Amino acid sequence: MEKLIITAAICGAEVTKEQNPAVPYTVEEIVREARSAVEAGAAIVHLHVRRDDGTPTQDRERFRECIDAIKSKIPDVILIPSTGGAVGMSAEERLQPTELFPEMATLDCGTCNFGDDIFDNTMPMMRIFGKRMLENHIKPEYECFEMGHLDTILTMAKKGEVPGAPMQFNFVLGVPGCTPATVGNLDWMVRQIPAGSTWTVTGIGRHAFPMAAAGIVMGGNVRVGFEDNLYRSRGVLAKSNGELVSKVVRLAKELGREIATPAEARKILGL
Amino acid sequence: MEKLIITAAICGAEVTKEQNPAVPYTVEEIVREARSAVEAGAAIVHLHVRRDDGTPTQDRERFRECIDAIKSKIPDVILIPSTGGAVGMSAEERLQPTELFPEMATLDCGTCNFGDDIFDNTMPMMRIFGKRMLENHIKPEYECFEMGHLDTILTMAKKGEVPGAPMQFNFVLGVPGCTPATVGNLDWMVRQIPAGSTWTVTGIGRHAFPMAAAGIVMGGNVRVGFEDNLYRSRGVLAKSNGELVSKVVRLAKELGREIATPAEARKILGL
Amino acid sequence: MEKLIITAAICGAEVTKEQNPAVPYTVEEIVREARSAVEAGAAIVHLHVRRDDGTPTQDRERFRECIDAIKSKIPDVILIPSTGGAVGMSAEERLQPTELFPEMATLDCGTCNFGDDIFDNTMPMMRIFGKRMLENHIKPEYECFEMGHLDTILTMAKKGEVPGAPMQFNFVLGVPGCTPATVGNLDWMVRQIPAGSTWTVTGIGRHAFPMAAAGIVMGGNVRVGFEDNLYRSRGVLAKSNGELVSKVVRLAKELGREIATPAEARKILGL
Amino acid sequence: MEKLIITAAICGAEVTKEQNPAVPYTVEEIVREARSAVEAGAAIVHLHVRRDDGTPTQDRERFRECIDAIKSKIPDVILIPSTGGAVGMSAEERLQPTELFPEMATLDCGTCNFGDDIFDNTMPMMRIFGKRMLENHIKPEYECFEMGHLDTILTMAKKGEVPGAPMQFNFVLGVPGCTPATVGNLDWMVRQIPAGSTWTVTGIGRHAFPMAAAGIVMGGNVRVGFEDNLYRSRGVLAKSNGELVSKVVRLAKELGREIATPAEARKILGL
Repeated sequence: MEKLIITAAICGAEVTKEQNPAVPYTVEEIVREARSAVEAGAAIVHLHVRRDDGTPTQDRERFRECIDAIKSKIPDVILIPSTGGAVGMSAEERLQPTELFPEMATLDCGTCNFGDDIFDNTMPMMRIFGKRMLENHIKPEYECFEMGHLDTILTMAKKGEVPGAPMQFNFVLGVPGCTPATVGNLDWMVRQIPAGSTWTVTGIGRHAFPMAAAGIVMGGNVRVGFEDNLYRSRGVLAKSNGELVSKVVRLAKELGREIATPAEARKILGL
Repeated sequence: MEKLIITAAICGAEVTKEQNPAVPYTVEEIVREARSAVEAGAAIVHLHVRRDDGTPTQDRERFRECIDAIKSKIPDVILIPSTGGAVGMSAEERLQPTELFPEMATLDCGTCNFGDDIFDNTMPMMRIFGKRMLENHIKPEYECFEMGHLDTILTMAKKGEVPGAPMQFNFVLGVPGCTPATVGNLDWMVRQIPAGSTWTVTGIGRHAFPMAAAGIVMGGNVRVGFEDNLYRSRGVLAKSNGELVSKVVRLAKELGREIATPAEARKILGL
Repeated sequence: MEKLIITAAICGAEVTKEQNPAVPYTVEEIVREARSAVEAGAAIVHLHVRRDDGTPTQDRERFRECIDAIKSKIPDVILIPSTGGAVGMSAEERLQPTELFPEMATLDCGTCNFGDDIFDNTMPMMRIFGKRMLENHIKPEYECFEMGHLDTILTMAKKGEVPGAPMQFNFVLGVPGCTPATVGNLDWMVRQIPAGSTWTVTGIGRHAFPMAAAGIVMGGNVRVGFEDNLYRSRGVLAKSNGELVSKVVRLAKELGREIATPAEARKILGL
Repeated sequence: MEKLIITAAICGAEVTKEQNPAVPYTVEEIVREARSAVEAGAAIVHLHVRRDDGTPTQDRERFRECIDAIKSKIPDVILIPSTGGAVGMSAEERLQPTELFPEMATLDCGTCNFGDDIFDNTMPMMRIFGKRMLENHIKPEYECFEMGHLDTILTMAKKGEVPGAPMQFNFVLGVPGCTPATVGNLDWMVRQIPAGSTWTVTGIGRHAFPMAAAGIVMGGNVRVGFEDNLYRSRGVLAKSNGELVSKVVRLAKELGREIATPAEARKILGL
């Protein structure tokens, strides 16, 4: 098996300091959390950004500021800015970080309920996002919450509307309204990706570490972080993203998988 | 195995006479198609209605008119009015046929892309639909296009927000943007329904009869009709919904499953 | 989808004239049944042979006699002699038909219960069978009754102990003691074969036509015949293997798959 | 989720001191290994026994001696003697430990290749084993290496030939010749057990801990021990069964599952 690539989703757009005081808002806090994650073993930081008051934003300049600040401290880390943004943002707003020509960026592959809200990613939007990533030579991380999302993006890749092989998928399981975080559901989706693809699993909330274990065992990669889960263990808030990453590292060690450095991750992902 | 319940989705909201001149718009045409389906072996008619010019509508009075006309000719058929309506309609608009206290009505279990559009069924909407069906003693047919839809409705049923066991599911597979119509995907979803439930499969377009065959073999039930597919075989338009139903009947006969009458279907569905 | 290859297992080693008087024992009867199958649409005849009194035998000369007789009447049919033979036969006995250099021959991929008996196919036996087929340029049809059988043969193919890609599998489902004949089980096995392989499904007894339908829909191929099932429909004995093949042809026609001729089957199988 | 029941298969019939000097042969060694396992967290010891020179035996008196010795030191542990014995033993030989009226005993559910050998468990043998367990009020642990094994035992349970609900299954995955140890295969088998059953997973060799992690996450139980795997991590021999159990305990802790005591395990298993 390949080495394990750990992604830290350090911030997200929905969680707040009220829920866990370690959630980062400011540039300094974001750098702090990125460092804690990378020092613990993450090769990738998945990035949302906030205003200093915590408001989620997709503002290009705020992204630039955060990316520059992270890169000045941890130059080799792979950064994957979000183009998902927060519920209700327009496509143009969400696309801003792609103007910074990151190596990778997320691309959400379908519309679904997200709790009581709709997370809208229509096919016309996806075509715009795909075109941008093709033009700017950005490798997408394809986020799939449902089997239909996976099918949609495979169809678009066949048509050349989005970047094709080798594709990187992130199966986000356990969002209320979407595919539940079970080992069987994960396996079912993984079986339907093209040979030569790479994949990551993200388990939401209490499913974070069970899905991490499944990803480790199945030869996939793992995402954890405050965006997905605020707890180190039942009822115990994590003090940093690094604590969450460390737990994945311990699981991987017990299960005999080595951890990929950013350089190794770039090779595995074909960057 | 139980006898096979065939549902005819005779009209839909999207297909037009331009695509197949047998698509019904007027009350008379809707009665004609319902009769052809029931005479061929359908126990259930799934009903959308149109204005005389073909515009889809969820108007309560139009539904009443069509239902009364059908019932006067085929009194025992089970009618399942749609609460899905057409893309873009409001929840209130879509709910109108439930005011007529039908035995059953469809309830869509999640939001998804539907080609380039969004088919929106938010959780707050679903709670309203569920409450109405509970109050009006309507058995829902739960339409699931994705695994997350199934999970959502099971969660809501546990909370008492929608009618519970015995539940009837309709797995609609092959809509562009949603779970593809494969035997494996169907089996995957069917394995996750509660014991004691009933289910139907609907394959869209060229998947109509392959999914029908799978449903017959797996012990489920089958929906066909102009709403889902306009062709009797590759390139050959069906002249009536009855032709589509007849083909399912022939498949069932070859495969050793008998066809349920409306009375038998009521028993199987627990109406 | 490729055209459908129908295999007729016209004789088998276990069924008797007492069960169905059309079961062939003599050379003439075997030719009669082969013709009825091929005329109905089979491209392949899977061959066991008997003594005139019905005793199963793997005798080389009896196989030669039957093969010559069939070929003289239907020269283009693909013949797949069995190396499974009957329960209790030795490996050497079972291997005899391979001395006739047929295009293909079956190779059973593991040991399992077969009702109250053991069908023994140890790994050392399988290596001998594989070596023979490699030497005699015979393409095996790999018969898998369990997931472990599939895994065994894939491992052996990787080691070069048996012929490799493109591999042809026959999933035999529904033998008492082995994997049951469900659509889900079939799909599960099919998902685990290498890209570029071909496969056939065989449903035992009352599962013959349900599995045939699944195979047709899933893009696989179908085996039917007296070896697997004696009935045309519930309680009605088939008068010939042709009747069983005809039923598969009708299903395929309803489901939009064309039937492969022997020449087309050779191309699909890479013979 | 229920607490996790850990079974230690401390000895087996095939592994030797040459492979790992900690493999127990003598009564004292068997007690030592049982203690190390139970002290580390095992609630169950799965028991094979040996002659002092390491020869596997199913001798009743040797079993009695070992069981008495273990019980005198760890009175509350659940003991599951093997009725699998070693390859080549007769049914009567294998059945001997059932004469001691243990709470539980293993019952193998089918015949399969086991490396180059055959592990034979014919249906007639299984009926004898089932009858004995019914008569002696022994709860079987049903060992399944293939889907067909699971189906066989469910059929026999329906006929009353073996003890029925609540059934305890042990899915043994990764034996050469049988179903491979993948998360997907495990999930596939687990989905087909009756509601109300309990299950354990055993991964052979390097699959021991990956399967343990899967079992923990999926809500099942876990077996480890020298019978299945001799290594603590890649290339590092375990010094005791306790080391293997400890690793499972650490995984369970990271993944938020508590460990069942023997008393809790009895309750969960319905003993």
